[in-house]
Formats: sequence, C-alpha cells, structure tokens
Amino acid sequence: MDGDKGLPGLSHPDHILRTIAAELAEKFAGTFSADMVERYVFESYAALARTARVSAMLPALAQKFATDRLTALAQSEGALPHAVPEVLFVCVENAGRSQMAAALLNRRAEGRVHARSAGASPIERVYPRAAEAMAELGVDMADAYPKPLTDDVVRAADVVITMSCPDACPVYAGKRYEDWELDDASEDTIEEARRIRNELDARVDKLLGQLPAMP
Amino acid sequence: MDGDKGLPGLSHPDHILRTIAAELAEKFAGTFSADMVERYVFESYAALARTARVSAMLPALAQKFATDRLTALAQSEGALPHAVPEVLFVCVENAGRSQMAAALLNRRAEGRVHARSAGASPIERVYPRAAEAMAELGVDMADAYPKPLTDDVVRAADVVITMSCPDACPVYAGKRYEDWELDDASEDTIEEARRIRNELDARVDKLLGQLPAMP
Repeated sequence: MDGDKGLPGLSHPDHILRTIAAELAEKFAGTFSADMVERYVFESYAALARTARVSAMLPALAQKFATDRLTALAQSEGALPHAVPEVLFVCVENAGRSQMAAALLNRRAEGRVHARSAGASPIERVYPRAAEAMAELGVDMADAYPKPLTDDVVRAADVVITMSCPDACPVYAGKRYEDWELDDASEDTIEEARRIRNELDARVDKLLGQLPAMP
Repeated sequence: MDGDKGLPGLSHPDHILRTIAAELAEKFAGTFSADMVERYVFESYAALARTARVSAMLPALAQKFATDRLTALAQSEGALPHAVPEVLFVCVENAGRSQMAAALLNRRAEGRVHARSAGASPIERVYPRAAEAMAELGVDMADAYPKPLTDDVVRAADVVITMSCPDACPVYAGKRYEDWELDDASEDTIEEARRIRNELDARVDKLLGQLPAMP
C-alpha cells in the first residue's frame, strides 16, 4: 500500500526531485557530475524528511539544502570563490542557538564573513521564540530551517563553533574549532530567547573581531 | 584550536577516510565515479559522527555504512543483482525494534529475503536488552549499529515497514509501504525486549509468507 501523504505530486516526490536535480546539474556543470548532483538532491530530501512533519514544503527545502551543500563543497574544492571567512555553528537541534548565532554573525559582518548552521539531531522547525527575538533586531528567520550536520559544510568552514555538542562534528586539520558553553536557558519564553540572543550576539561580536580578512 | 578526540589518527580522520574511499572506488568502478564514492564515505562518516560517542570505531562503521548504501544504490540502478525481495525497517532510533525486525526477518528468510534497517533519529548504539533478547535466539547483534535513514536504501527496497514514524520515509511509486503499530513497551528490561521480539517475530513470519519469490 502507498501511504497517502498530502497532495499527489508531493506524496510521490520522485518527479519534482528529478527536475530540481536537472536544474542543479546544469548550475554545477563542470564541477560535479549529474549523477552526484542527483544523489545530493535525493539524500538532502530524505535527510529533511526524517524529521519534518509538513511534507508540502519538503521539495523546496531539499532544493535549498542541496544547493547550499553543493556550494559549500565547490568552495572547499576551489571551484567556487571562498572570498570571506566561513563560520559554521553547530548545536543539537539547529532550531535555536546555532540558527541565531549564524544570523547574528551574518548581520554584524555585513558581508565580511559568511555563517552557516547545522544540527546533530535537527528538529522540525526553528523555535518561534528564537525567530521572534531575531525579528526584534530586524532579522527575518522565515527562510531558516533545521538541517543535519553534513561533511560538506564542515569542509567549507574556516571556523567551527559547536554548542554543547563538541563531539558531533568531524575534526579536520587546518580549521579552528571552539565549543561554546552557553547558559542552559531554553527558547520557550521570549525573555529566555532574548537572553540567549544577547549572549550569542556578544560572543559573535568578539569572534568577528578575531577573524582575519581573507587574502 | 583542535579538539582532542582520542587517538591522533582518529581525531583527524581525513587520511583514513580517503584510504577507505579509494578502496571502495575500486570496488564500485564502472558503476559510480570515484568522486561520488568519496562523498558517500565522508557523508556517511559525518552522519554517524553526529550521534556517536565512541570515535575510535567511527571510520570502520563509516566504511560499512557507505558500502551498504552504495550496494543498495547499485541494486536500485540495476548495476548489482537484486535477486531477492528487499525489506527496509524504519523506526525512530534504529536501536531496538527496526534492528530486531531486520535480524528476525533475515533469520527466518534464510537468504530468500534481505532486510535492512534505519532510523529517523538514530541514537548511539543498539539497546543492550534488544541485543540480549536476540542472542537468546542465537542471533549475534555485535555488528549492528544505528544509522540514519537514507534515500539509497529506500530506493533499493521493495517493501518499507515503518514503526511509529510513517512520515519519516520518502514515498516512491512501485513499493509497498506499511506502518506497524507496536505495543508501547520499551527495551529497558529483558522481559519487555523479549515481548517486543516475539511480537515482531510473529509479524515478520506473516510478512515472509506474503512476499513473492523474485523472478
């Protein structure tokens, strides 16, 4: 029996994922084979489907996730520019702290640094209170989504900041690794989300001062 | 700063993973490109590292995981034989039920069916009580390890059995999907592990009777 998950085209995502893969294969032609790009699209979809509940958005998220991952991989291999320092924030759920930290660093850096985030055990969506606390600074988190930590984004990173999960991330030579221990507040109330946001913003500001301009 | 995670060669797994990738690339030469095989090895490593605590075994597990995934993909593409029905069991943690179900089916089928297992949110290791209950039937679970659900094993499956996570798995046409609702016992005591094992064994026996011999 086939499960009946939402709209017909989405409950059987094969066709739309192949279309996405063909577009991305064109975008990355000369860097990655079409086969490999297709694998990235389907595996990105399966990885998000594991913990997602709303299947209607999954193909679009998989497209975004696969594009970000292939971009990171291409950067790490020198096929795409790596013009500014890349910072990767990793927490367990990729729903609060690591999402806020990446958004805060991107906001402060104004293009001088690029930040990504990922989680050891991602949950369904970004904490509403975390998004609300960021909105108070004028940062829109509507496009942010929790995603599992992958090798490609580690490979592209110059700095990896883990938060309470120092062992979740592969350790490669030539990168700076740091583990941030943060107050054990949850993102359940707006007051706690603000407190975490402010602590992260201070740390991010300090980090930014330490990052060299790229050659 | 580099984190110090165990033995030198293992805290920087790059070299050993490249060696594994080169061996696997040879094994799958003509089917998959060396680049794609290398990606499989590194992403398999990162996927297991997310939730593992013992890093010393990770390269060996990543080799196994990548080999199983590439084998499944090659089967689904017709590059390797798909001689018997393939059944995939999926639960949340891939530490108890889905591991037991796959082992029970492989035991009963005696080569007429092949079973794999995976989890939506895998944990560190197989539950000791689940392994103990299987040992009572003479089944050794020493090599079993929790792993995240990936697209390749779904693609290779003829039958997908989810257990209390019907939405975690991509739905593709031409496969049989079923969700098994099991008693809400935990695997915390040997009595409960035995009860789950026995219920699973009865279901697996019934499933086996329904599976056609492959052409």
